[in-house]
Amino acid sequence: MDRDRDDRDEGRRRRTAERAAAALWNGDRASQGLGMRIEASGPGGATVSMRVRPDMVNGHGICHGGLVFALADSAFAFACNSYGDNTVAAGAAIEFLRPAREGDVLTAVAAERWRAGRAGIYEIEVRNQQGELVALFRGRSHQIAGRLIDD
Amino acid sequence: MDRDRDDRDEGRRRRTAERAAAALWNGDRASQGLGMRIEASGPGGATVSMRVRPDMVNGHGICHGGLVFALADSAFAFACNSYGDNTVAAGAAIEFLRPAREGDVLTAVAAERWRAGRAGIYEIEVRNQQGELVALFRGRSHQIAGRLIDD
Amino acid sequence: MDRDRDDRDEGRRRRTAERAAAALWNGDRASQGLGMRIEASGPGGATVSMRVRPDMVNGHGICHGGLVFALADSAFAFACNSYGDNTVAAGAAIEFLRPAREGDVLTAVAAERWRAGRAGIYEIEVRNQQGELVALFRGRSHQIAGRLIDD
Amino acid sequence: MDRDRDDRDEGRRRRTAERAAAALWNGDRASQGLGMRIEASGPGGATVSMRVRPDMVNGHGICHGGLVFALADSAFAFACNSYGDNTVAAGAAIEFLRPAREGDVLTAVAAERWRAGRAGIYEIEVRNQQGELVALFRGRSHQIAGRLIDD
Repeated sequence: MDRDRDDRDEGRRRRTAERAAAALWNGDRASQGLGMRIEASGPGGATVSMRVRPDMVNGHGICHGGLVFALADSAFAFACNSYGDNTVAAGAAIEFLRPAREGDVLTAVAAERWRAGRAGIYEIEVRNQQGELVALFRGRSHQIAGRLIDD
Repeated sequence: MDRDRDDRDEGRRRRTAERAAAALWNGDRASQGLGMRIEASGPGGATVSMRVRPDMVNGHGICHGGLVFALADSAFAFACNSYGDNTVAAGAAIEFLRPAREGDVLTAVAAERWRAGRAGIYEIEVRNQQGELVALFRGRSHQIAGRLIDD
Repeated sequence: MDRDRDDRDEGRRRRTAERAAAALWNGDRASQGLGMRIEASGPGGATVSMRVRPDMVNGHGICHGGLVFALADSAFAFACNSYGDNTVAAGAAIEFLRPAREGDVLTAVAAERWRAGRAGIYEIEVRNQQGELVALFRGRSHQIAGRLIDD
Repeated sequence: MDRDRDDRDEGRRRRTAERAAAALWNGDRASQGLGMRIEASGPGGATVSMRVRPDMVNGHGICHGGLVFALADSAFAFACNSYGDNTVAAGAAIEFLRPAREGDVLTAVAAERWRAGRAGIYEIEVRNQQGELVALFRGRSHQIAGRLIDD
């Protein structure tokens, strides 16, 4: 039945996304070092969280914008690598909408907006523990040679 | 003489930029923790360097894009705060042109492109130790209340 | 009853959006000249369409990117002016995902992603008559002095 | 002599840029219709001007942002096609810094910032007749199949 085949395909895509996220995470010393956690991952999407530590604060006493970007960028990476092909960021734009403060727990949710050939566009929302929008990020991905996982 | 007055004004602006950079740097635990160094700072500009450490590498074995962004963002911050007014990033866009690798020394040079009222536009080039362009960053700054330094 | 009051408020916001769109449209000789049509408008949103005319084609035989941008920008303008306050674009970024060709009918749908104080972020999707995504646009609005309509 | 060869190469590149600009311009009904003029073109660069006509004004009585973008985008197109290979815009970001008004003569100067493989980054400044900065534009180009001119 087609329904069975669709379920099998969907299951296969989910497993590919999970294995790709695990492979990527294992080597991702930067995201590990920043205390990030993968909360969820699936085909074309990912959710990653990070607590703003005392050593993440800038000279204005708020979370360094580069680290808010890094969180969004990691969620973007797990989303755009979820098909198992090596894929990197070609560019990104971020809007900083509200400062994040020490102790805040930030959550970045990445969603695919478009994908064709080797290119993709992903949008990532970063919210704090109150659900307030901290940043909006849009990334453009570029698939390079090689697979992230064995098939 | 006008020439003398211009020199004095220029000197005053340079000292303001240096004091603002020092004040910002003192509280900037994030940039310190990432091993950044301020190489130069002046009115509307700044140069900041960072060595790509083993803990800055992502799952593809290259420097995490968020940390390349963080370096550019710090140079941007020192440049846009150089007049002594508290100024934050409102948004930024980055193009990743070449991967940075463990051991690379990256240098970000920030230059002011435009400033009016409370807003400014800065462009930051990130290059590696061979002088190759790693990333192009454009940031939009927004001046908030308060001074960074006493006058 | 609260329900009644909510309905009245919602009705008032809808009328404000319609009047603001009409006021803006009346003076918008550029959008008129490009043959745009407002398909819908409401609080924080707008839908605008445009047929790609022979005089909109560039040297590669496809719709000039500036005119795809102009369509998205008009939808953005109707959306961010929908509260009746004079509001202009401060900046925008566009991704061109698929060429538009002569005769295509493009539709831009603008949605508000965030708004606080005088600033707002809007995302606009441009699709062709087959529903295919032609461009993704993100605009940042800035409210200036004055009202677009009498209250 | 090397000097002679360099001169010949430079001359060849200049002629290629001029022929590419002419070929692109001939088919570019949009830029023609908007009254643009190519002021200069060369390898990796171009200067294009446009007078803000009465039919280019939006509902706020200033030049429609889409048409400021279109001018910058045309300068970008002449610059990134100057090597004779068919090249299109993949994306762009613009900052609107000052309104342009009816009767203003805008000039867009495009300069190449980076080029590798099929991709390039160009920055375009748009100024009015007083030399004031109206907009800053950054475009990302993508070379597609085919040549714009015969070799």
